Amino acid sequence: MVYVPSVQLVDAAIAGETRAIARLLTRAENGDAECRPALDTLYRRGGRAHIVGITGVPGSGKSTLVARLTARIRASGRKVAIVAIDPSSPFSGGAILGDRIRMGELGGDPGVFVRSMATRGSLGGLARGTLEAVDVLDASGFELVLIETVGVGQDEVEVARAAHTTVVVSAPGLGDDIQAIKAGILEIADIHVVSKCDKPDASRTIADLKNMLALGFGTGVAMSQPSVIATSSVRDEGIVELAEAIDRHHAMLVASGGIAVRRAQIDKRRLLTASEAILRERVVLHGEDRVSALLEALARRELSPHSAALRLLAELPSGETT
Amino acid sequence: MVYVPSVQLVDAAIAGETRAIARLLTRAENGDAECRPALDTLYRRGGRAHIVGITGVPGSGKSTLVARLTARIRASGRKVAIVAIDPSSPFSGGAILGDRIRMGELGGDPGVFVRSMATRGSLGGLARGTLEAVDVLDASGFELVLIETVGVGQDEVEVARAAHTTVVVSAPGLGDDIQAIKAGILEIADIHVVSKCDKPDASRTIADLKNMLALGFGTGVAMSQPSVIATSSVRDEGIVELAEAIDRHHAMLVASGGIAVRRAQIDKRRLLTASEAILRERVVLHGEDRVSALLEALARRELSPHSAALRLLAELPSGETT
Repeated sequence: MVYVPSVQLVDAAIAGETRAIARLLTRAENGDAECRPALDTLYRRGGRAHIVGITGVPGSGKSTLVARLTARIRASGRKVAIVAIDPSSPFSGGAILGDRIRMGELGGDPGVFVRSMATRGSLGGLARGTLEAVDVLDASGFELVLIETVGVGQDEVEVARAAHTTVVVSAPGLGDDIQAIKAGILEIADIHVVSKCDKPDASRTIADLKNMLALGFGTGVAMSQPSVIATSSVRDEGIVELAEAIDRHHAMLVASGGIAVRRAQIDKRRLLTASEAILRERVVLHGEDRVSALLEALARRELSPHSAALRLLAELPSGETT
Repeated sequence: MVYVPSVQLVDAAIAGETRAIARLLTRAENGDAECRPALDTLYRRGGRAHIVGITGVPGSGKSTLVARLTARIRASGRKVAIVAIDPSSPFSGGAILGDRIRMGELGGDPGVFVRSMATRGSLGGLARGTLEAVDVLDASGFELVLIETVGVGQDEVEVARAAHTTVVVSAPGLGDDIQAIKAGILEIADIHVVSKCDKPDASRTIADLKNMLALGFGTGVAMSQPSVIATSSVRDEGIVELAEAIDRHHAMLVASGGIAVRRAQIDKRRLLTASEAILRERVVLHGEDRVSALLEALARRELSPHSAALRLLAELPSGETT
């Protein structure tokens, strides 16, 4: 396959050509310096997509939910892209196999684009690579970009916070241990889904969730009281309601002007994420001379990590070095 | 309570006085600028403790294991400190309650120090605060510092990688969904524990783990083939073996010179973690003028996050600003 420079793929990507998009996503994921100018151009051309984060622990049934939701949105004629960074997602084929499979029922629809991001070996680059993939899909004309994340860990929360609308998926019967680790993401939910509502203990899960919301959990950064939607992928229930709630949340953000606030929050976090990724590359991958000198001082315990970090930041070279 | 400046607590902490240690840990966790000089001094005085990371998903029984292991190490006369950053750990009382409880059987022993770190609202500071807490405990004469983490997420992996010896805890019956999210931490294990070996399906879990190790998973950065130890906290089995394996791993690191390699890796990561925490404070908490200008350019989509980040890093002020 002939290597096409990234800048030459930009127009094709904006025209929605799958192959150009796929190539740019791979380069963004790898953090290729070569694709920087192309990503810059695409970022400037984007900003129209509704970005929806869908997050929940493994076993919450969110992957099936995402497939059903995608089918529902497609029925309204809009183009949908899915970016999965859940290592246990069937979209990414699981962390261990590393294999990538497609969603059966949506395969072959040119209005659907599915991409799983590798979660291993992406030193500090997972959040940045994922959000840059979203930029590419946004500029390529996908009206909704769904980001599926496992909802645990800094990278995943980082990505979930970059969405305009965040859906948090709970499920009956996962156990308190598992639900507890999700507590940190409750507060970022605009919409709560309780999936697998065909299960007998679903009503208790819904009641527990509503109790937590009533107690004030889960309303930290959300701009409105989050709704709670019961779904069953088996019975195909609640999917229409979820699609409507997502559209309604977006319409509310636009009507209230809240979208500008949300975008400003996202910009701030993305500036930070991008800065950290650059820093990480410089310290870990490149090992410049000034880094070596600081590491030697650390090894001799002449400097603490904090003091060494202050010196590193003060001495950073300017200009493009990635 | 009279406020004692941190620098005046240093000598008392080094002498092992619990109250001075506890105060310094609180200030380190909060990221107080006031305690920086004290932390710098303590860092220079440390470096003798054996730092052991104990990581595993919620439900793996690692908290009970940590309690049993601590009792065992105490029986050898050594002082042990425990730092827990698992939100579901009984040491931290769960993420939702935010309450802090003590380990029953070890309460009142002055040779044991237990500290849980808050995991919510610690913007970018969790890893840094935790590792600085370890520095304080190291300088305060604890011969072993055990760090208990949930083993999922960037912060937790960051902390686990800062240990000289990393123990990864699996348990029978947690289900493939849960085990899968742990795949990323398998490779950092020096010692594998399969806990709850009184359960009927334990032998399958042990066999699965040994198969994965035989296939080459789990030997990424470990310097030797990891051992697999079966434990049962209920039956008090395997705890002596685990304590011995931890000591043996440390002895091997010292004898082979591998300890210097491990320390150099830790220093590199800590430099990075500290740099990121400083960056995060500057961008998110302070909102300096130069940050505002870059955020406006992002909002107008004149700059991509990456390009804005390069400018931010080039323009960072030097000197102590935290």
